[in-house]
Amino acid sequence: MASFYIGVDVGGMTIKMGIFSDTGELLEKWNIPTRTEEEGKNILPDIVESIEQKRAAYGGNILGIGMGIPGPMTEDGVVLKCANFGWGVFNVKNALADLTGVGNVKVGNDANVAALGEMWKGGGRGYDSIVMVTLGTGCGGGIIYKGKVLTGSKGAGGEIGHIKVERDETETCGCGNKGCLEQYASAVGIVRMAKKSMREDSCLSRMADFTAKDVFDSAKAGDAFCLEIVERFGRYLGTALSDVAHVVDPEAFVIGGGVSAAGQILLDVVQKYFSENAMYALKETKFHLAELGNDAGIYGAVRMVLFK
Amino acid sequence: MASFYIGVDVGGMTIKMGIFSDTGELLEKWNIPTRTEEEGKNILPDIVESIEQKRAAYGGNILGIGMGIPGPMTEDGVVLKCANFGWGVFNVKNALADLTGVGNVKVGNDANVAALGEMWKGGGRGYDSIVMVTLGTGCGGGIIYKGKVLTGSKGAGGEIGHIKVERDETETCGCGNKGCLEQYASAVGIVRMAKKSMREDSCLSRMADFTAKDVFDSAKAGDAFCLEIVERFGRYLGTALSDVAHVVDPEAFVIGGGVSAAGQILLDVVQKYFSENAMYALKETKFHLAELGNDAGIYGAVRMVLFK
Repeated sequence: MASFYIGVDVGGMTIKMGIFSDTGELLEKWNIPTRTEEEGKNILPDIVESIEQKRAAYGGNILGIGMGIPGPMTEDGVVLKCANFGWGVFNVKNALADLTGVGNVKVGNDANVAALGEMWKGGGRGYDSIVMVTLGTGCGGGIIYKGKVLTGSKGAGGEIGHIKVERDETETCGCGNKGCLEQYASAVGIVRMAKKSMREDSCLSRMADFTAKDVFDSAKAGDAFCLEIVERFGRYLGTALSDVAHVVDPEAFVIGGGVSAAGQILLDVVQKYFSENAMYALKETKFHLAELGNDAGIYGAVRMVLFK
Repeated sequence: MASFYIGVDVGGMTIKMGIFSDTGELLEKWNIPTRTEEEGKNILPDIVESIEQKRAAYGGNILGIGMGIPGPMTEDGVVLKCANFGWGVFNVKNALADLTGVGNVKVGNDANVAALGEMWKGGGRGYDSIVMVTLGTGCGGGIIYKGKVLTGSKGAGGEIGHIKVERDETETCGCGNKGCLEQYASAVGIVRMAKKSMREDSCLSRMADFTAKDVFDSAKAGDAFCLEIVERFGRYLGTALSDVAHVVDPEAFVIGGGVSAAGQILLDVVQKYFSENAMYALKETKFHLAELGNDAGIYGAVRMVLFK
């Protein structure tokens, strides 16, 4: 009888799921809604029901379930804080194992799990130590060191979005501090920087509203103001990543998230400031764009349970 | 017949050595000079001869030899750059094993090895993930994550002295960049900061020359200028360590090296700025002073080969 593995990536709105062969091929992916009402009590049962339906359709055994969730957690699978879902502190891994009867269950922080996915099948292929940077609404990080997720002692390993990069900032970051990387190197941060210093000579000044994509697109089209914003973004991110390299010295950085769709212009400006600030031994650290997009989470989730 | 373990800490001037029981007790420690002439070709033979003399005196077997050397190296024991000694690239571990006939040999970067020693028997006792910061002439770092040294992919893991902390610096660091942590958080760096901004109202202005210890001593005695220098030192180091915590999230920082003799005043000012800049999950990270002084290296070296 055929054997399958399930990857689950729990987001605030949608739960992404995938069924994989025992050689790691993605056979099918699908989504179910994240029902956050009543302290999120339906989330795990919904996942279990969806897995069971898919198992029945494929007619085989489920040999492992990997899951990524947004929030810090211990390596034992205890979620520490998952405010989006209203979950308290409990062992998600054991709960999922009990509900499914599958023994081989692993649960990790979503940013770390996505990093594992990119290393397995995406922009980090061929490496075993990478730092994945996710530039979405916020700025997240996931560190894989010698093939394993670096979770840290309190689940805050790879929280690079809250590295202090600007001591003169007056606005407060979501975390309560001021001058965090996320305030500049994220979709929200890029728009914030641009709005704060907007000039009349920029095409953006004539738009009612604009996005980080507009900033990069206008920079590519030669808008001087947007080129300056991209340069500032690159200085903050490239310098912060040089800090990160002086700590964990990865083989490569993999940059993903919606903002990374800007492509080569983004890689170039980040690498420029990285190289300027990194010590000699680190200057040749590689940079790649992520390749799996929204599927990184389900790939990484399965990777946790597929090969030991 | 009794069994012993040897710890070796190779410095630029002196090689520190220790013989340990198989339960990890330091039985005796001694030094031999580091003969750097002729591309350092005598260094390993001198160490081997000294080990053999001690083994003969104790009348037993040597079951393991651990060694720390100043420079980046791979986990396989290949030294990549050890300019002080004139050594080229070669496998020190294999060379030492061949010369002694001892199979259980490990070699590591000295800062990482000292960190392991402090975690085993010093200021980091009871933890399994620490960052050790050595504030000597320079500023070094060693990271132990879940009991193992984090060397990084190019041997530059824990090189925290070269994290960029000041974008307005005009003087160049030893590494070639500008604004590295080491330019402020080291014995040399503290004196440099004080000399650069010296004021007539400070007692230091009447000294022909002074040291980092003088700066801390005068601060403790209430000298306003020295208190400002200590504050700047603490801001640079505390903020940089918050960067480090956002990457590897250690249980504790252990601060050693000559400058750390300043004691509580140093811990207090570093913790103040750490806590101000670290995200909520990290604010309670512990800080301790190192306890083993110059013996941290031989303890850590033996720790590498004593327990697997």
